[in-house]
Amino acid sequence: MSDADPGQSREDPATPAADAEYTAGDVREGIPFIGAGPGDPGLLTVTGKRLVEDADLVVHAGSLVNSELLEEFCADAEQVSSIGKDLEELIPLLTEAYEAGRTVVRLHSGDPAVYGAAIEQMDALESEGVPTYFVPGVTSAFAASATLRTQLTLNEVANHVVFTRPQGKTLSEDEDHIGDFVGHGDVTVCIYLGTHAVAETMDRLLDEGHDPDTPVAVVYHASWPDEDVLRGTIGTIGEKVEAAGYRASAMVIIGEAATGAGYERSYLYDGWANRGADGQEAETDD
Amino acid sequence: MSDADPGQSREDPATPAADAEYTAGDVREGIPFIGAGPGDPGLLTVTGKRLVEDADLVVHAGSLVNSELLEEFCADAEQVSSIGKDLEELIPLLTEAYEAGRTVVRLHSGDPAVYGAAIEQMDALESEGVPTYFVPGVTSAFAASATLRTQLTLNEVANHVVFTRPQGKTLSEDEDHIGDFVGHGDVTVCIYLGTHAVAETMDRLLDEGHDPDTPVAVVYHASWPDEDVLRGTIGTIGEKVEAAGYRASAMVIIGEAATGAGYERSYLYDGWANRGADGQEAETDD
Repeated sequence: MSDADPGQSREDPATPAADAEYTAGDVREGIPFIGAGPGDPGLLTVTGKRLVEDADLVVHAGSLVNSELLEEFCADAEQVSSIGKDLEELIPLLTEAYEAGRTVVRLHSGDPAVYGAAIEQMDALESEGVPTYFVPGVTSAFAASATLRTQLTLNEVANHVVFTRPQGKTLSEDEDHIGDFVGHGDVTVCIYLGTHAVAETMDRLLDEGHDPDTPVAVVYHASWPDEDVLRGTIGTIGEKVEAAGYRASAMVIIGEAATGAGYERSYLYDGWANRGADGQEAETDD
Repeated sequence: MSDADPGQSREDPATPAADAEYTAGDVREGIPFIGAGPGDPGLLTVTGKRLVEDADLVVHAGSLVNSELLEEFCADAEQVSSIGKDLEELIPLLTEAYEAGRTVVRLHSGDPAVYGAAIEQMDALESEGVPTYFVPGVTSAFAASATLRTQLTLNEVANHVVFTRPQGKTLSEDEDHIGDFVGHGDVTVCIYLGTHAVAETMDRLLDEGHDPDTPVAVVYHASWPDEDVLRGTIGTIGEKVEAAGYRASAMVIIGEAATGAGYERSYLYDGWANRGADGQEAETDD
């Protein structure tokens, strides 16, 4: 750790931001930062599973990663939870294991690009001479929408999707845009890291004059064995979440798309699919 | 198809929107609507791979799904592209195969909840008595961020992520919120289905007075063998995309997070991780 400040940002990156030798999903030399997916072991990617199975040391996000996944794919590896460990502890742990020739993986929950804290670890490791790369994963909003049997975008109902979080220790009042997002009327608002604050978030939306009948679904532990669904509205969901006692680990989805109802058939199946680039892309999210 | 209008929406759903018997990721009776992921076969989920491998009939999203995935996981199955087929053709195809006892899967690209057109097929199939369910996948924005070696949320840089699309045949000018999203300053804006419209989208942002130096990255075919990255700004990216000749299949990411630089260390590694529910959730996206 001598000459590297593990807290430095990438104003002057140690490595190029993208490596043309590899594409996303390729396995390469170094420590992979793997998205474990939302919880169910089967929602880990094929490449993620292979890397976790091959690992000698798995540093994971503690209770945020389903222990069933660890038992199924890496029962014989050394498993270390990162919860409560700061960079000054994590970086030497990962570096020394890697330099000793062990196969090391870092397992984040969901996809590491969404409310993860992967990059600061990766940059610190690169400063120590340890190569790193991402292996993407399924984010919990997609497990929640699967459970709700809906799409986050729905023709003529929801044209856009936002992943957001409410104000609190990390986010100031000015940085909380939930009211703006809901105000568009055609945005599905997925709130991460906000289970403890559902009631106050809904109260703010009511104070701002948003329709109290706007649908809200809360999916606790999407894809875990104890998965649970609460349905309500901006006006009613706060009490339901408090009654259920959930304080963490739920996805809050605001908007008509939460119901899966009321959509129009897309153009796709009316013969637009072959009408040029726009139409060709219209089926799905390439 | 006698008494069912395949175009009906779920004002009066044939089946409950969520099924408490199962959680997201569970395999069940019926036709799974599987997210194939962004392209690389290794970015399909473990459960998705298993279902595709077991299938007799795979109805897939044509060129939006990487043919390498089909070759690797279901070379022996009957493969049918859905491109150019309307519901009136697709639903009988799927229903008859299912009722004949064949193992049928429907493969959408990315995650089917994001700019997919899965629900209308699923509702039509349920009306025909064919059970259906979602198997979530990795969306292309996550492959793009992996390639860019960044996170879509970055501490003190990007607090929120939006998946959006530009105005065009499907979306009216009023429904195009890209300018509003960029205007927040701390939202990473991921544009799907907008490759053909990058130059005009950027021109609109310039007309609205957005900073021409705002970073923009374009990732063509994220995770495919011909993946390519263009980097620029709101002021420069339009010309670069036109020069490269890309008209489809690229992810456009607007915002400082596209660079992966300039972030602050999260609270996590300063000992906040164990300070209550908010801190516990701060590591990642549960």
